[in-house]
Amino acid sequence: MKKITIQTSTNQYDVTIGEGLRHQVLEYLPKQYSRIFIITDSNVAPLYLHDVINSINGASPVDYAVVPAGEASKSIQIYYDLMSDAIKAGLDRDSLIIALGGGMVGDLAGFVAATFMRGIDFIQMPTTILAHDSSVGGKVAINHDEGKNLIGCFYPPVAVIYDVETLHTLPFKEIRSGYAEIVKHSFIHESSFWSTISQVNLIEAINDTELVNHLLKGIEVKAQIVEQDEYESNIRQFLNFGHTLGHALESEIGYGEITHGEAVAIGMLFAFQVSEKLYEIKLPYEQLINWLKSNQYPLKIQEIATDKLVTRMKRDKKSKSQKITMVLLREVGKPLIEQLDDQTIHLWLGEFLQELKCH
Amino acid sequence: MKKITIQTSTNQYDVTIGEGLRHQVLEYLPKQYSRIFIITDSNVAPLYLHDVINSINGASPVDYAVVPAGEASKSIQIYYDLMSDAIKAGLDRDSLIIALGGGMVGDLAGFVAATFMRGIDFIQMPTTILAHDSSVGGKVAINHDEGKNLIGCFYPPVAVIYDVETLHTLPFKEIRSGYAEIVKHSFIHESSFWSTISQVNLIEAINDTELVNHLLKGIEVKAQIVEQDEYESNIRQFLNFGHTLGHALESEIGYGEITHGEAVAIGMLFAFQVSEKLYEIKLPYEQLINWLKSNQYPLKIQEIATDKLVTRMKRDKKSKSQKITMVLLREVGKPLIEQLDDQTIHLWLGEFLQELKCH
Repeated sequence: MKKITIQTSTNQYDVTIGEGLRHQVLEYLPKQYSRIFIITDSNVAPLYLHDVINSINGASPVDYAVVPAGEASKSIQIYYDLMSDAIKAGLDRDSLIIALGGGMVGDLAGFVAATFMRGIDFIQMPTTILAHDSSVGGKVAINHDEGKNLIGCFYPPVAVIYDVETLHTLPFKEIRSGYAEIVKHSFIHESSFWSTISQVNLIEAINDTELVNHLLKGIEVKAQIVEQDEYESNIRQFLNFGHTLGHALESEIGYGEITHGEAVAIGMLFAFQVSEKLYEIKLPYEQLINWLKSNQYPLKIQEIATDKLVTRMKRDKKSKSQKITMVLLREVGKPLIEQLDDQTIHLWLGEFLQELKCH
Repeated sequence: MKKITIQTSTNQYDVTIGEGLRHQVLEYLPKQYSRIFIITDSNVAPLYLHDVINSINGASPVDYAVVPAGEASKSIQIYYDLMSDAIKAGLDRDSLIIALGGGMVGDLAGFVAATFMRGIDFIQMPTTILAHDSSVGGKVAINHDEGKNLIGCFYPPVAVIYDVETLHTLPFKEIRSGYAEIVKHSFIHESSFWSTISQVNLIEAINDTELVNHLLKGIEVKAQIVEQDEYESNIRQFLNFGHTLGHALESEIGYGEITHGEAVAIGMLFAFQVSEKLYEIKLPYEQLINWLKSNQYPLKIQEIATDKLVTRMKRDKKSKSQKITMVLLREVGKPLIEQLDDQTIHLWLGEFLQELKCH
């Protein structure tokens, strides 16, 4: 069992990572709650919901809601329905919401908690590798038809309880998706982290000790940045490495058709190319693309008009005054933020997408 | 022109009150914005929207949205539509939202600003007396079918620009509604404020100097409390004097059928009675009811089943563990919070509603 304490402007909370923590939830609750409302999804509920309810052991009355698995549940309609459920369950300001699931559940349940009666406590219980990223840092959101996470706020949890045993049931696709964010954390951090991750073979089972270490390191990288810039005025944007194109691809291809991590993987490749062209440097592009291929990341994507992607990239939350904001690398571990004009991006993206087809 | 500076945990902002401020908006913007998006309603737009746009004088590109006047616009649907409008207008994180209108517009536009791309700056430009209350303190929200303001958060504005000239066009009903909150501020403050307000005759026109002083005093009372307890853990609940029953009446009778202030006025009378019964004391109940009657507050309300109101009161955001939370008075200027069981409230409320019919 490992623990990291994260400091925010309004609170501090512990991230606890270990085996079987879902059976010990009661130990990690920071206080007694009038009621507990668990929000989970249709994939996770049959596997772990009852373990969590049992572990609360009647200390507070428990209700739950199960939303359909998949990014489509981060909709305004499901958000509103969860509000209705929370009211019907009799939640008050001394109640707790537990987000049991991956990033989708964390974002959605977190936004419900942030805005229910102007904010009640919530706890993240991530059940995916990808959620090592989203469960730390206090970003919660739902999607708008026009783009991902356009509706949301900053609202830190009161605890993160990360049971690595819940990762054993993940499909390979999800392991791949999650490791893309670990790879991202490695690129914006010192190069030794990438050296470790570049040796990982996802096709073979990863043991829990190794997994805990990778997650812990990823969370540490993120926590260090978030503690310095909680509200994303400057360096927190580094965490968006690979995400400008990544988000655009997710929106265009459709959530569910491509995983977040798969989209970010392609986004990182493009950010490598832009960095190499703009700064006239050499980055480990071949090493990355080979690692992605050997771990079966899908690099061949459907035909999408370049200008559609460019329009999406301009609409990204980080964009300023209609320019495209990208996180680039001077070298591995040295990220920086650039505003780029759309003609240049249009040209380079066209070339990149063409080249990707040949892999 | 008068100014109060309000300190919050995350920022500080100025409330400026004076005549003709809508013509000088540019002077009060704390910084240069990439875009400005004005949200107003169908009553206010024809009167003051163009003054505000003109006063910005092209310093930033301006767009606007006009929502139907009335509490019904604080809906999830209009909230989502405003998000769409903001996206279409090309707002980014360096953009500003201006809430031009009464409390409804402030709450709605504030919640849009709080959750658009995880929060952008917003400015309150109140155009009602009632909004002296809601524009200070950082509470923003929309309504749920099950109750008022159930969806929202704490999100302070970056400035409040209060042009008292915009109050000249208010219908009498709205002046009455606004003064109910000033009366509330007077009861939870020292008794001299109530002595002043109890002399006011709303039927005659109130001059701007007097009005500015009342608003200023009301805002000062509120600001003092909010600075001590921004997130409503304790004393901020004093501001809810008259609101437990007030909110229940608004929900049952229907927003628009009774104004907020009219409902709060009745709520304050009930809080007086409960205080007198519980503490066996005497409060200026007769003085309050006479003042309300002489200023034509409607005290005869439609027949409503007492248990419906009690159910609503239990569901109030301030309620804890299914008890009813009310703010009571030990004496004028000495508020305190009580948890009351519903049988007692049911009995006393029944008697109160019966008695109210005779006025």
